[in-house]
Amino acid sequence: LHAELESLMTPAALVDVDRMQANLARMAAYTKRHGLALRPHTKTHKSADLARRQLTHGASGLTVATLLEGETMMAASSDVLLAHPPLGDAKLRRLVQMAKHVRTTVALDSPEALAGVARAADRGRVEVGVLVELDLGMKRVGVADPRRTVELARGAVAASCLEFRGVLFYPGHIREPVAEQGPALQAVNDGLAEHLEALRAAGLEAEVVSGGSTPTAYVSHEIAGLTEIRPGTYIFNDRTTSSIGACAWEDCAYSVLATVVSTAVPGQAVVDAGAKALAREELRAPDATGYAALLDRPDVVVSGLSEEHGILDLRQTDWRPAVGERVRIVPNHVCVSVNLQNRIWGVRGERIEESWLVEARGWSR
Amino acid sequence: LHAELESLMTPAALVDVDRMQANLARMAAYTKRHGLALRPHTKTHKSADLARRQLTHGASGLTVATLLEGETMMAASSDVLLAHPPLGDAKLRRLVQMAKHVRTTVALDSPEALAGVARAADRGRVEVGVLVELDLGMKRVGVADPRRTVELARGAVAASCLEFRGVLFYPGHIREPVAEQGPALQAVNDGLAEHLEALRAAGLEAEVVSGGSTPTAYVSHEIAGLTEIRPGTYIFNDRTTSSIGACAWEDCAYSVLATVVSTAVPGQAVVDAGAKALAREELRAPDATGYAALLDRPDVVVSGLSEEHGILDLRQTDWRPAVGERVRIVPNHVCVSVNLQNRIWGVRGERIEESWLVEARGWSR
Repeated sequence: LHAELESLMTPAALVDVDRMQANLARMAAYTKRHGLALRPHTKTHKSADLARRQLTHGASGLTVATLLEGETMMAASSDVLLAHPPLGDAKLRRLVQMAKHVRTTVALDSPEALAGVARAADRGRVEVGVLVELDLGMKRVGVADPRRTVELARGAVAASCLEFRGVLFYPGHIREPVAEQGPALQAVNDGLAEHLEALRAAGLEAEVVSGGSTPTAYVSHEIAGLTEIRPGTYIFNDRTTSSIGACAWEDCAYSVLATVVSTAVPGQAVVDAGAKALAREELRAPDATGYAALLDRPDVVVSGLSEEHGILDLRQTDWRPAVGERVRIVPNHVCVSVNLQNRIWGVRGERIEESWLVEARGWSR
Repeated sequence: LHAELESLMTPAALVDVDRMQANLARMAAYTKRHGLALRPHTKTHKSADLARRQLTHGASGLTVATLLEGETMMAASSDVLLAHPPLGDAKLRRLVQMAKHVRTTVALDSPEALAGVARAADRGRVEVGVLVELDLGMKRVGVADPRRTVELARGAVAASCLEFRGVLFYPGHIREPVAEQGPALQAVNDGLAEHLEALRAAGLEAEVVSGGSTPTAYVSHEIAGLTEIRPGTYIFNDRTTSSIGACAWEDCAYSVLATVVSTAVPGQAVVDAGAKALAREELRAPDATGYAALLDRPDVVVSGLSEEHGILDLRQTDWRPAVGERVRIVPNHVCVSVNLQNRIWGVRGERIEESWLVEARGWSR
């Protein structure tokens, strides 16, 4: 490869290879130091190649959000966790195919999902592992009542082709700056303890206690009983991760290369990266504005998005780009921006050194 | 094909074929009645097959937002308008290739873009048409000062391989309910008249005056001097179009089939269509909430989105779906939802009758 960035049409998704490697190494060191298993969530990059790189940086298995992400990741790992309940015959048939080839675990929170997976595993004569998904405050999915956790765990134990492996939760509601996460973490700790005690009282052991997210990754050791974490964003980081102090701005490895296409309207410049390249996601951080910011000028934010237009707000800066000038833009939420790309370009400075297909892109199934 | 919907994994993008055909016929009849050229914006569906259907329903050419959409649409039409200025050598080389095969027009608002297109057209020995993009109140791109319009038009006339064809604007700022668009339309009328008069005074004739958007499509005849419109959304419609009265709810042809995956948290149900299937777009209409609504129960809205989870707010309804139940969801903004799909399924009732690849999907370049 070794082409120059100049040759790329914009918008183009770039990953600074050195920053990515440093992000991977940092998480590997942290989880090793604290004896936590690392099971990265591959929804962030959707590339088996990048998943392999995570496996050489401390990961012992992979997490996926969709069945077709799972099928993609079978090329990288023999141990895949589907952190989303598979419902419906079409998905269950494919789950069973997956379980024939790799160690497969699913997270679920309902008797219906449990029954479906049990039936499919029986029919396919494969073993599928089960984690009961807990709601520890996010109020999205997951069981809140420890008695229901015990019921689902018992159901998994009772099913001949299922193996109860433990519990899973996603602390995605913890968005405070890292330094202020104490109270929220305490609530997670308290809730988790109740579920684990109820299981123990019922004679059930949660071998796996799976938590973690990038915003809470580096405080995971403060959650009692946690055995593994599933961060996704950490491989690239983004404006949200940086805003809450879970990484430095200089740790943002992903940006969208864009070209200034218009400066006709005063006080702004328009680039050719809009909602179809950056994704429209508000910044969930205090006093935050904009959907993205310039890598080299983080005070210049993308204040508006059309499908193929991004508005750079120039009212707080003396910088005035010319039409044709190129900029690198860090989105608020990298996972949804990557999902809009066909390919990611790995760069060192102005040189393109690698590229990865976003293989499971668009496969929200 | 003729499979049943039940066989599809969810989320899956569906188009009600009869509703789509009715939407196409309605716009064809309107533009014919008022003597307006119809140049649909294909960003909405990104499929050459669906563009062909628009050409058999009154369209005389196509609009694209990106160069690679243009390359896709060359398979359907010999007359393509790129409504986004192409900057940079890579894009200009491909623009010239396109212009060798189809009548090509670009919209631009800067001397830099004009010079680039002129140089490329010269080098490629092809003719490229130019529309000067006007800002008539949206304040995104486009020239507001009629003197600049004249300068750019003169520049196009002076360049040997360019042909000045007229002016273009996008009234995307008009989001009022259709019945209340009068004052905003009057401002557009007034602004447009100034630019056209300045051109006439300079001895320049705008053969094309291109405007229109789906929200303003059916009042286009009230804009004096307009010769063509470029609606995109009208082929499918969406929750926004319906909310502002530019279509009826029953005209929404596009929905995302999703499965209820969790009812564990009281007051809500969670489906497997999240931001990566529906797209996160606020509803730009009065008193609006949510990112999408159920096709058959428009009072049930998607109040929250994670990447692969959509939260159905059940607090205002007695309806309680079971885990495993399927629903059809109409997103606020169909164009960005389609861009997340690989394929769209054409359905009549529960039957799948056709399907279209979203060919130019993800090609934001």
